[in-house]
Amino acid sequence: MKKFVNAVDSILTESLAGFAAAHEGLVALGEGGAFLRRARLKPNKVALISGGGSGHEPLHAGFVGYGMLDAACPGQVFTSPTPDQMSAAAKAVETGAGVLFIVKNYSGDRMNFEMAAEILDGPVETVLTDDDVAVENSTYSAGRRGVAGTLIVEKIVGAAAEAGRDLKALKALGEKVNARTRSMGVALTSCTVPAAGCPTFELGEKEMEMGVGIHGEPGRRRVPLTSADAIAEEMVGAIAGNLGAEIHGDAVLLVNGFGGTPLMELYLMYHAARAQLEKRGAKIARSLVGNYVTSLDMAGCSITVSMTDDELLPLWDAPVETAALRWAR
Amino acid sequence: MKKFVNAVDSILTESLAGFAAAHEGLVALGEGGAFLRRARLKPNKVALISGGGSGHEPLHAGFVGYGMLDAACPGQVFTSPTPDQMSAAAKAVETGAGVLFIVKNYSGDRMNFEMAAEILDGPVETVLTDDDVAVENSTYSAGRRGVAGTLIVEKIVGAAAEAGRDLKALKALGEKVNARTRSMGVALTSCTVPAAGCPTFELGEKEMEMGVGIHGEPGRRRVPLTSADAIAEEMVGAIAGNLGAEIHGDAVLLVNGFGGTPLMELYLMYHAARAQLEKRGAKIARSLVGNYVTSLDMAGCSITVSMTDDELLPLWDAPVETAALRWAR
Repeated sequence: MKKFVNAVDSILTESLAGFAAAHEGLVALGEGGAFLRRARLKPNKVALISGGGSGHEPLHAGFVGYGMLDAACPGQVFTSPTPDQMSAAAKAVETGAGVLFIVKNYSGDRMNFEMAAEILDGPVETVLTDDDVAVENSTYSAGRRGVAGTLIVEKIVGAAAEAGRDLKALKALGEKVNARTRSMGVALTSCTVPAAGCPTFELGEKEMEMGVGIHGEPGRRRVPLTSADAIAEEMVGAIAGNLGAEIHGDAVLLVNGFGGTPLMELYLMYHAARAQLEKRGAKIARSLVGNYVTSLDMAGCSITVSMTDDELLPLWDAPVETAALRWAR
Repeated sequence: MKKFVNAVDSILTESLAGFAAAHEGLVALGEGGAFLRRARLKPNKVALISGGGSGHEPLHAGFVGYGMLDAACPGQVFTSPTPDQMSAAAKAVETGAGVLFIVKNYSGDRMNFEMAAEILDGPVETVLTDDDVAVENSTYSAGRRGVAGTLIVEKIVGAAAEAGRDLKALKALGEKVNARTRSMGVALTSCTVPAAGCPTFELGEKEMEMGVGIHGEPGRRRVPLTSADAIAEEMVGAIAGNLGAEIHGDAVLLVNGFGGTPLMELYLMYHAARAQLEKRGAKIARSLVGNYVTSLDMAGCSITVSMTDDELLPLWDAPVETAALRWAR
């Protein structure tokens, strides 16, 4: 295992301490390092909280800040955070308008966020994300997995929360965005979980895992590595097939790297994916290309398509200032 | 070779087309795809142009935009762009105040930018960057190599250009920043140049290349992989030794990934590097952590320290809006 580490047990705490120090003024470490929170809270704004296993950076801590999340709870690598972390985060950032949890659809995350909601006194709602069209059930999830589309839900709901929408409206908005968002991923290599010390799965020198999950879970099929265009065609085809007639409209296109794939290849995949989408009737209204929802050091990428409209696009465009996503259009 | 490609010959054009489409409104492809330019130019502002071999994305195209570069000329992977590309870019973005080339110190880049300056009629100046303290001469360079510190030169000079400084003052400013900026890199794996199809160099399962160049050039020594703290200590030690007494002051700290190392490890390295710098008397005034000056899919990172002052820090903080770097402090 070739990684920058001191000891496997301290990776998360050292990395979080580095993150908090690098982005001082924007975020702060919560009590005992259990969560990351916005440095400045806004009174009477619904508090948005997400979390999940680490290893997907910048998700979620990188999305804490103005116009997006109020707190993020990181678990150990690929391991759900605990209900205690979540309830502590909620108590720290709740400012009088309730709490909305944004939860990727994995059994451990769901269970722990549900327990946290029970611990908490005040109003708490949850939006589940399940944008991955690759498989219907998977190693860690009943139903579809929540993957990179979660970023789009967090951005749009975050903008609406900043604008003062109430808890119920935000839950409905999150569900609307999730319902219009589809993703699919492909792995060229496995990732290596530090505590395991060896690759999660084995891929032949000329193989890829089509439909891979963000923890290296199996996808649809293991196939020979083919051209970028053919890969994009299969992924966009699966997404478009799942969207059906909805594909004829304005879309946000996210080409997301898994951590080990350079930007040069991601832009090439964006080019291929965009052509496939336009061929199927979509109009690319906004684009995002980079490493946003990663799987440690996995080489590979995912394509996310989120159909947008007159309500959603201004919320996507609204100013955001986080470690990993920032703009003031 | 496991990469997202259609054909080796078309990687650059497809990737650039994707980049230009993804960042429409911010950048545009120049004639024949020879360069990337700002979508909107500012009259009577010194035009800042950089360039070099591809494979280091987001450098340089990702830094084209308000407050930074006016154009970037990408060569083939790890190959200098041609004088024709550079002079075409200069003609396209010059708006009456002259042209400043920002050039990393590699023999091919220097020669071609010099030829471009000769082709051009108007006033042209050049700032050379040579921030890499690892070695004094290298495979592609006489003298020290220009590496991730180039980003800091481009940001600070870009802000000053936006504020209306003239060509001579900008050249002096760029040289001032370069003289206060030092970097060193380490590789845990080789990169793979697409046209070669195999790793540039071989590293044993438990080895690292200390002082590696951004094209995989040899560094100071090949040593056993050790702890993140020990790696940071050696790198910061080399940088601080080179800075001498200057280290006692305010610094911008950049921990830069080479493309194959996940953010979680980069923040851990930031944590280690910051502690080493503070121990040596530096105060970390600003921080940047991420993949900014990459080496294709190489796993590894570099540490850059740029000593700052009352002139430079406000220029670092000034608003910037590019594909890869954006803030409005």
